[in-house]
Amino acid sequence: MATALVVGGGLGGCLLAIYLARRGMSVEVYERHADPRRGTTKRSALNITLCERGLLALAEVGLRERVEAMAVPARGRRVHGADGSTAYQPYGNHGEAIYSISRSDLNAALMDQAESEPRVRFHFGKKCVHVDSALPSARFEDSTGAVVEARADRIFGADGAYSAVRSHLQKTERFNYSQQYWNQGYRSLTIPAGLNGSAQLEPEVLHIWPRGTRMLIGFPNRDGTTSCSLLLPYKGDFSFDSLASEASIRQFFKEAFPDVVELIPELTQQFLGGAPNSLLTIRCNPWSFQDKVLLVGDAAHAILPSHGQGANAAFEDCRILASCMDEHGADWVAVFQSFEAVRRPSMDVMADLCIEHFVEICELVGDPKFLKRREVERCLSELYPALYQPLYSMITFGSMPYIEATLIDQRQRHALDRILSTPEMMTSLGSPEVRQFLEGSLGEPGGVV
Amino acid sequence: MATALVVGGGLGGCLLAIYLARRGMSVEVYERHADPRRGTTKRSALNITLCERGLLALAEVGLRERVEAMAVPARGRRVHGADGSTAYQPYGNHGEAIYSISRSDLNAALMDQAESEPRVRFHFGKKCVHVDSALPSARFEDSTGAVVEARADRIFGADGAYSAVRSHLQKTERFNYSQQYWNQGYRSLTIPAGLNGSAQLEPEVLHIWPRGTRMLIGFPNRDGTTSCSLLLPYKGDFSFDSLASEASIRQFFKEAFPDVVELIPELTQQFLGGAPNSLLTIRCNPWSFQDKVLLVGDAAHAILPSHGQGANAAFEDCRILASCMDEHGADWVAVFQSFEAVRRPSMDVMADLCIEHFVEICELVGDPKFLKRREVERCLSELYPALYQPLYSMITFGSMPYIEATLIDQRQRHALDRILSTPEMMTSLGSPEVRQFLEGSLGEPGGVV
Repeated sequence: MATALVVGGGLGGCLLAIYLARRGMSVEVYERHADPRRGTTKRSALNITLCERGLLALAEVGLRERVEAMAVPARGRRVHGADGSTAYQPYGNHGEAIYSISRSDLNAALMDQAESEPRVRFHFGKKCVHVDSALPSARFEDSTGAVVEARADRIFGADGAYSAVRSHLQKTERFNYSQQYWNQGYRSLTIPAGLNGSAQLEPEVLHIWPRGTRMLIGFPNRDGTTSCSLLLPYKGDFSFDSLASEASIRQFFKEAFPDVVELIPELTQQFLGGAPNSLLTIRCNPWSFQDKVLLVGDAAHAILPSHGQGANAAFEDCRILASCMDEHGADWVAVFQSFEAVRRPSMDVMADLCIEHFVEICELVGDPKFLKRREVERCLSELYPALYQPLYSMITFGSMPYIEATLIDQRQRHALDRILSTPEMMTSLGSPEVRQFLEGSLGEPGGVV
Repeated sequence: MATALVVGGGLGGCLLAIYLARRGMSVEVYERHADPRRGTTKRSALNITLCERGLLALAEVGLRERVEAMAVPARGRRVHGADGSTAYQPYGNHGEAIYSISRSDLNAALMDQAESEPRVRFHFGKKCVHVDSALPSARFEDSTGAVVEARADRIFGADGAYSAVRSHLQKTERFNYSQQYWNQGYRSLTIPAGLNGSAQLEPEVLHIWPRGTRMLIGFPNRDGTTSCSLLLPYKGDFSFDSLASEASIRQFFKEAFPDVVELIPELTQQFLGGAPNSLLTIRCNPWSFQDKVLLVGDAAHAILPSHGQGANAAFEDCRILASCMDEHGADWVAVFQSFEAVRRPSMDVMADLCIEHFVEICELVGDPKFLKRREVERCLSELYPALYQPLYSMITFGSMPYIEATLIDQRQRHALDRILSTPEMMTSLGSPEVRQFLEGSLGEPGGVV
C-alpha cells in the first residue's frame, strides 16, 4: 500500500489525511503539539471564517453539514464607528453567509474524522527536525529529546507558515522563497457569553471596529462567546510597544472601543497575557521535490487574513490536489506538477490581493472616495448580477479559481473607473447606456461560478 | 578590548576584519573551507572585475596599489558576433578601466593582509552550524565533527549568499527574507596562456560572445590565461540539461563560439567537471539583530553579476560601515541601524537593476532599437559630459550611492525617450536645442561624483 507522511495535524493536515486515506494511501500524521483534544492544551481563542471554497472541500469528504452545524453563519458585518454609531453591511445581495467557527473546535472535528479513517494514524508531540527529500524520510523529536525517523513514499508538508518541511526544501537546488512580515500583529481577546449563554453582542454578524491601523474584529460563537482579534501596529502610539501598562490599555480601549470595553473581563490580563501574533506572506516555488515531497496550505502560500481565505485556501488545496491525483493516477511527478501549475498562479495573485486589501481596510475605510466606489460597486452588482460581481463575492461565495476572479475584477475595475468619471452614467446607474457599456466592456457575464 | 567574530573569510570578510582591527577591535575570522593559500585547495577559475567603488574601499586600508598591480585593466569589451565579426566598445569616454582579477588571488592577498594585522586571527575549516543572536555566540564544526563555541561582543555575517548567520537570523522575529534564483547558471572554463605566457586573445579587454540566453565571457589574467564564464539556461535546447555528451558540447561550441573552441583544451572535461553555479538575488531586512549581529556583503544583499558589482558592493559595505562606526562610536545599535538606513535602499534598487540589466544583456543585445538607444546615450554623454552620464558609468566609475545614480538615471531615461521620439533633436544631438532641453530636464548636472 502506498504510504504518506503528513507533517502537521492542523486544519489542512487533517483534511489532507482524510483525502489521501480515501484514495487508498496509508497515512501517518505527525503533529508537533500534544493532542489538542486532551484537556492539557490551552484552547486557542482564535476564530476563522469558512466560505464556499472551504465548505466545498469539506463537502467532498462528507463533513460540510457537521461543520456548518458547529459554526455561526454571518450574513453581514456590523461596523462600529468611533462616534458610537453603527452600520450593517450585508456580505452578499442574496443573504449569503460566511461561517464563524473556533479554530480549535474545527481542528478537533477534523482530527476526529481523520482518526476514524482506517488508514490514518496520528503521532502527537512529534516535532519535525529534519527532512531528507531524496529518500524521502523525516525525523521527529519528542519532548524528551528522543528522535524517531519515519519513511514513506511521499511526505506532505502541511505544517503551516513556519513550516519545517519547507525550511529543508529551502536548501535544495534553486528553491525560490520569500517571507514578508506585516507591520501589524494581533492579540486574541474573548467576550464571554451573557445570561443563559446568549451573546452580549448582536449574534450572527461579524463585528468590526475600524480605527485606521488599529482595529478590533469580533467573531460570534455558538456558545454565546465572541472571539475578538485586536490588530495593532508593533511600534508608535497605541501599539504593542507603547500599550504596556494596564492604565494605558484601559484608556486606549475607552477611547477607541467604548461600547465593548465593559464586555471584556480581565481586559488587561488578556491583552498582556502573551506576545502578539505575527502576520506574514510566504511565497515559494517549486512546491514539490520530485515525486517525494509536496507543500500544501500555509506552508506553500501563507497569505494575510484580510480576505479570510487562509484556511479556505488550505482546504481548497486538498480538493484540487485530489482532482490531480484522480487525473494522473500513480504518476506523482505529474500530480505534484499539475497541482502547482493549477494552483500557484492563484495563490500568487491572492498574496498580492490580500496585502492590497489589508491596506484598504486599514487606510481607506473612512475615505469618502473609497466608500463611494464600494457603494457604486454594490449598486452595479444588484442592478446587473449577471454582469458585475464584486471581487469579495467571487472570492467568498464562488469557487472559480482566484486567478480567474482577479482577472474578471481587473476588467471590472476599469469599467468602474470609467463609470465613476462619467457624470451621465453616475446619475443613472440603471440606464440602458450603463448596461450597454458594461455588456461591452466586461465581455461575457462574470457571474459567480 | 572589544571583540568581533567575522563569519566567512572571503573577500568581504577579510576586508572587514582589516577595517575592524584598525579601529581597535580584536577579530576572530572563521572560514568553513581550509586555508585557500595552502596547496591542497583547488584554485577557483573564477574572475571578478573591480571598479572604482571597490578600489576606493581598498584604498582606505592601503591596498589599492597592491591589488591593481595584480589585476589586468580593461578599458573596453570586445564583442564577438555569431558571424565571426568583432567590435570594440570602450567602457568610458576617457579611457576608464575596470580591473580583471582572479577571485582566489584577490582573496589570498586580502587574507595575507588581514593575517598580518596584530589583532586578527583566522580559524580555517570551521563551518558555522549555529548562531545565538542574543548572547551573541556561534558554534563551528570542523571536518572531524568536533564543535567549538565562540563568543564575542559582536558577530558579523560575511558568509556570502548562502549565509549560515542569516539562516539563523531568518528565524528571529519578523525577519523579512527572499531568495530568488536566476534561470541560467554558469560554468568556469580556462583558456591557457600562449607562447611565453602571452594571452591567446587580445589582452586588456573583456571578451563577450553574446548569443541570447547563452553567453561566453572571457576575463584576462596577468599570466596570459583567460578565465571564462559560460552562461546557459538550465533546461531546453543548448542548456546544462541537454548538453550532456561530449559530442553535443563540442558541436554547440563549434556553432556558437567557433573562434574560441580550439583555444580551450579538454573543453568537454572542463564543462562536465562539475555542476553549474547558480545565480541568485537575496534580499532581507533587518540586516542586524540589536547591537549583536550584522550581515554584510552577499549575506545581506546578493545581486546578479550583470553589473559586476557583487564584490565591489561588499567592499563598499566595509567602507560605509566604518564611516558609521566613526560617526556613532560605541553606540552599536546606531552604527548598525545607520549602516542599513544608508545602504539598504541602494542595494534594494541594485537588486532590481541587475535583474533588469541581465534581461537586457541576454535579450536585447541584438535588438536595433536597444542598440540605437545605447548609441544615442553614448553620444549625449560625450557631447554633454557634465549633464549626461550613462548609468553604467555612474555605477562603475563613480562612487555616488547606487540609489542616487538610479534616480539620476530615471530622469535621464525620460529625457532620452523624448529625444528618441523627436526627429528634430535626433538629427542634431549637438544643437543648442538639445543642450537646452537636457539642462532643463536633468536639472543640475548629473556628473560622476
